[in-house]
Amino acid sequence: MTKVYVIMGSDSDLKVMQDCLAALEKFDIGYEVLISSAHRVPDETAQIARDAAARGINVIIAGAGMAAHLAGVIAAHTVLPVIAVPLSGSALSGIDALYAMVQMPRGVPVATVAVDGAFNAGVLAAQIIGVSDSAVREKLLGYKEELAAQVKLKNKKLQEVGYRRYLEG
Amino acid sequence: MTKVYVIMGSDSDLKVMQDCLAALEKFDIGYEVLISSAHRVPDETAQIARDAAARGINVIIAGAGMAAHLAGVIAAHTVLPVIAVPLSGSALSGIDALYAMVQMPRGVPVATVAVDGAFNAGVLAAQIIGVSDSAVREKLLGYKEELAAQVKLKNKKLQEVGYRRYLEG
Amino acid sequence: MTKVYVIMGSDSDLKVMQDCLAALEKFDIGYEVLISSAHRVPDETAQIARDAAARGINVIIAGAGMAAHLAGVIAAHTVLPVIAVPLSGSALSGIDALYAMVQMPRGVPVATVAVDGAFNAGVLAAQIIGVSDSAVREKLLGYKEELAAQVKLKNKKLQEVGYRRYLEG
Amino acid sequence: MTKVYVIMGSDSDLKVMQDCLAALEKFDIGYEVLISSAHRVPDETAQIARDAAARGINVIIAGAGMAAHLAGVIAAHTVLPVIAVPLSGSALSGIDALYAMVQMPRGVPVATVAVDGAFNAGVLAAQIIGVSDSAVREKLLGYKEELAAQVKLKNKKLQEVGYRRYLEG
Amino acid sequence: MTKVYVIMGSDSDLKVMQDCLAALEKFDIGYEVLISSAHRVPDETAQIARDAAARGINVIIAGAGMAAHLAGVIAAHTVLPVIAVPLSGSALSGIDALYAMVQMPRGVPVATVAVDGAFNAGVLAAQIIGVSDSAVREKLLGYKEELAAQVKLKNKKLQEVGYRRYLEG
Amino acid sequence: MTKVYVIMGSDSDLKVMQDCLAALEKFDIGYEVLISSAHRVPDETAQIARDAAARGINVIIAGAGMAAHLAGVIAAHTVLPVIAVPLSGSALSGIDALYAMVQMPRGVPVATVAVDGAFNAGVLAAQIIGVSDSAVREKLLGYKEELAAQVKLKNKKLQEVGYRRYLEG
Amino acid sequence: MTKVYVIMGSDSDLKVMQDCLAALEKFDIGYEVLISSAHRVPDETAQIARDAAARGINVIIAGAGMAAHLAGVIAAHTVLPVIAVPLSGSALSGIDALYAMVQMPRGVPVATVAVDGAFNAGVLAAQIIGVSDSAVREKLLGYKEELAAQVKLKNKKLQEVGYRRYLEG
Amino acid sequence: MTKVYVIMGSDSDLKVMQDCLAALEKFDIGYEVLISSAHRVPDETAQIARDAAARGINVIIAGAGMAAHLAGVIAAHTVLPVIAVPLSGSALSGIDALYAMVQMPRGVPVATVAVDGAFNAGVLAAQIIGVSDSAVREKLLGYKEELAAQVKLKNKKLQEVGYRRYLEG
Repeated sequence: MTKVYVIMGSDSDLKVMQDCLAALEKFDIGYEVLISSAHRVPDETAQIARDAAARGINVIIAGAGMAAHLAGVIAAHTVLPVIAVPLSGSALSGIDALYAMVQMPRGVPVATVAVDGAFNAGVLAAQIIGVSDSAVREKLLGYKEELAAQVKLKNKKLQEVGYRRYLEG
Repeated sequence: MTKVYVIMGSDSDLKVMQDCLAALEKFDIGYEVLISSAHRVPDETAQIARDAAARGINVIIAGAGMAAHLAGVIAAHTVLPVIAVPLSGSALSGIDALYAMVQMPRGVPVATVAVDGAFNAGVLAAQIIGVSDSAVREKLLGYKEELAAQVKLKNKKLQEVGYRRYLEG
Repeated sequence: MTKVYVIMGSDSDLKVMQDCLAALEKFDIGYEVLISSAHRVPDETAQIARDAAARGINVIIAGAGMAAHLAGVIAAHTVLPVIAVPLSGSALSGIDALYAMVQMPRGVPVATVAVDGAFNAGVLAAQIIGVSDSAVREKLLGYKEELAAQVKLKNKKLQEVGYRRYLEG
Repeated sequence: MTKVYVIMGSDSDLKVMQDCLAALEKFDIGYEVLISSAHRVPDETAQIARDAAARGINVIIAGAGMAAHLAGVIAAHTVLPVIAVPLSGSALSGIDALYAMVQMPRGVPVATVAVDGAFNAGVLAAQIIGVSDSAVREKLLGYKEELAAQVKLKNKKLQEVGYRRYLEG
Repeated sequence: MTKVYVIMGSDSDLKVMQDCLAALEKFDIGYEVLISSAHRVPDETAQIARDAAARGINVIIAGAGMAAHLAGVIAAHTVLPVIAVPLSGSALSGIDALYAMVQMPRGVPVATVAVDGAFNAGVLAAQIIGVSDSAVREKLLGYKEELAAQVKLKNKKLQEVGYRRYLEG
Repeated sequence: MTKVYVIMGSDSDLKVMQDCLAALEKFDIGYEVLISSAHRVPDETAQIARDAAARGINVIIAGAGMAAHLAGVIAAHTVLPVIAVPLSGSALSGIDALYAMVQMPRGVPVATVAVDGAFNAGVLAAQIIGVSDSAVREKLLGYKEELAAQVKLKNKKLQEVGYRRYLEG
Repeated sequence: MTKVYVIMGSDSDLKVMQDCLAALEKFDIGYEVLISSAHRVPDETAQIARDAAARGINVIIAGAGMAAHLAGVIAAHTVLPVIAVPLSGSALSGIDALYAMVQMPRGVPVATVAVDGAFNAGVLAAQIIGVSDSAVREKLLGYKEELAAQVKLKNKKLQEVGYRRYLEG
Repeated sequence: MTKVYVIMGSDSDLKVMQDCLAALEKFDIGYEVLISSAHRVPDETAQIARDAAARGINVIIAGAGMAAHLAGVIAAHTVLPVIAVPLSGSALSGIDALYAMVQMPRGVPVATVAVDGAFNAGVLAAQIIGVSDSAVREKLLGYKEELAAQVKLKNKKLQEVGYRRYLEG
């Protein structure tokens, strides 16, 4: 069952945004991935946003670069939570996209994650769904333990072999 | 019934963060407002975050300035969605807080809003709760119409009186 | 006869944007001034942009602050030239609005002027209209002479009275 | 018939600026491309700008990097619309050129596009010419449809093959 | 005997630039102060630069704000050393003027001082003149001692009265 | 017994730097406060740095603004730890001083604190002295408890009176 | 005997942070190197910080990138001096980590060094230990002479062979 | 006869700074190139600066990266004009060096050129020497013509072959 829309402005964004899909798959959250540009197909983008709630979507994730309006335009047409992923790749290294997303005016927020933080957008979507879906919340708790276990394992290895051999791999 | 924690690092943040409370009240969402610093009372802050889900909290909003670690520290201890409000007021005008919040590493996102965007943090919390709470979602739809109506009213007045008289008040 | 739309996202932008109207009046260019937000009344904004050409509009000027999507959203719906005025006033002093406007992606440009450069937006609109309207071009040439004359007059006074008395007024 | 001057400060700018020429060719707009530096051949640059209108030029596009004065210097000598393309390539990644172009003082605007946004400069020139040239405007409307069709086609393919196969090409 | 031109783009720059004149007076260096804009009276500005050497000028100081082209335009027309004073006052606090001045391309340097550093521009002009004028160099050595003496005097007072009374005045 | 030098480049820095003295007094750490500029009295500054260790100094704190070289110049002449306080007040809001201090090259570090973070410089000096001075370390532990107690007290009051009355004072 | 903890948020930081270990080895200072993330294993990180003083640690060095909270979180749990190494590698080139570390709020400082300045963090740790350990201070004085000797040797070679042959190696 | 010192903080700067030497050779200006660090051999650096005037030096050029204090430290010890070349190469792309050089405080200016603008530093030194040395000034005038001729030649070729063949080489 589709719970999340992952929308990006261009297919060149897919390489970074696939991290987001990996995260959603990890938490067994259904999604649809769409290419839809706020500037090139504005009416279609608006329509997607307007219809999302009725189609059972819980969260919309929007990834875009440069003057990244996609998330804001979507948020203008829905009251679902919209997560914004600013993408680097321009001469301004994604600061343009970050400011164009995070600085939304009063009344129409988007939830912005790090530049190129597509994976975290997926995790945040899971956290939002987890508010009312205990199965997802359980998976998030498991993931948190997994993250901790990875750090501990790496640290254990570092203690055992020392930093020089650790760096050699 | 308390659904949202609004946590700030210092009581000097309350003046900006009260906008957030106003937003939550607008949507009839129960909240508790807390002062708890990631750097001054780290154990209490961690405890608040760890206990939040069990206490029925759905969303945590954290407002802080400068090297604003509060949202990230809370996110380290919970899988609830955490909304970050970077606060200006330092010599760097809140860019320090913005970067310290939005650039969270892989696995532990926070949902960042605009610098001093406390009101929007409240709206975003409502949107997250609205995913599973149709009453809140209805109120959000009403608010969206209200926003639109205000713009239309102002534009109507502008057309009627002209910009010179509009500016005179 | 209306040739230019001057659109702003909020009536709080009018104080800066009135400079733009003064410029258009100087060149006897008909205009309409509208409040219409890309985020609060997106459909109305799109409609205004879509209908502009048919209504005889030549140029659209859009002023907005923060994550300023207004100009880009309008440009998505028209092939008329769109001039963007990034407005300061946020914690980021208008750099957010500048990046959100000037960094438009391939295919959908907006013509960006300086932060708070509302007057210049009006002059640029006149220059665009002047491409095919010799009366406006004549007025622009007159204005250019006027600008030069002002500088020369000020310099002449400075040479006559010296800098100390000049500063005293 | 030449309608647009495309001027750049150095032949090293041509690699980026050729995108601009491609855009003009797409809309069948006649152009001349010139190398002329505001700092190395200032008199020739001024002369080109002064003569442009009499030679039937409608729009001047200027591309330059670093302390990019070319567009401003040209705008000082003409009332034709001047489009500025800030070029990256310096240690400051084009932010220097962006600020040196977009922040023009009162009375002498230039229409600035994105850093390295040469293609969009060509589109914007076409939009300006399209104000009074319905053939160009028709081509712009066609281009807008083409842009939309490309996005829809890509999205259609993505829906059909899924993101993993899409990324494999 | 006039040795230095102090040129500014607008009479509103005079309030900051008068510091420069004070410095030149301190070293008994003759100067002329001129208002001449690179964008509003470009031909006059070029002429001033071209004629400067023949009129016995040794150094040209140019102060301007925003997209500050004045120093670069002057440097295009002379081989005299040109000192640039970036002025704040815009929304971007003078970073725009700094980048527009200091980032001059290969072959045409300007000597840039701090944002609003008008006094230092005068000292730098004196240092340049002092290369071949021993009387000015002597005065510079005297000024250096004066600067040192001031610091020592303040420190002496601080040691005597303590910081609390020092702060009270 | 003097343990810390607090050096600033100008007496205008004293207003901010007095916070540092307050911190040192809080931990009963003897200090001398000096005005000594890296650019105006370079030899005296070097001498102070060279002699500091022999005079029993443990830590040197240097506060300066703009192109803030004071801390680096001191660090060039001593192996004592040097704490740098970047000061705002220039057009660049202290980012100039921050970069000029924190980005020290390999081999000659300075320990940089926040822009205008004079109080923290004092606390950091105490922490450094506390490495080998258990009395100071005890005071630091007491201060940490005090900080925590203040936050808890404020939070307690907030819970009791609610945010509206809290804001009224 | 372990005197210094070198903690990093991820094993991907080890490649830069090993410079820090090289510095500590140079001054014969015992250290332990640990991987421990403020966001993934917050309780372990807090515990390490809380126990450090009792285990005889004198200084803690923390290296992290992006929204780098590691140093601040550690400083919240100890009164030992904490040295912060902001790491580049993100889209924002380490400015995010720099601001997230250096801008610590009143009462809880960290001593920040340059972006990727891991070696200097080790030298600074030695300087702090050298306050009370004359053997380390002697080694620091020796290192300072070594640095000077290297520069002099390079300059001597440059004078002997000229810059062209020097560049050839 | 040596007229110019070209000083750099490290031999790794020589690769960029050799452009400066090429410029000085072009104008037949005698120079010495030195490696001398403000932080590693501060006394030698001060001595070089203090002795420069007596040894007949007219201008000192200083190139350095990161927290680039070299130019300011030299300027503290001489009244000769000091030209600063901020070098990129750090994580902050030379903005750190730019701010650390250009923002010199009142009384002690340095003449800053573009990031990595070593060639222009040489030209500026020639311009300063040319104030009193007509042979150098003649060479500068010749160089200005050469620059112009190069641009014209490139433009001529572009007109002849068209941009496509020009780009092919």
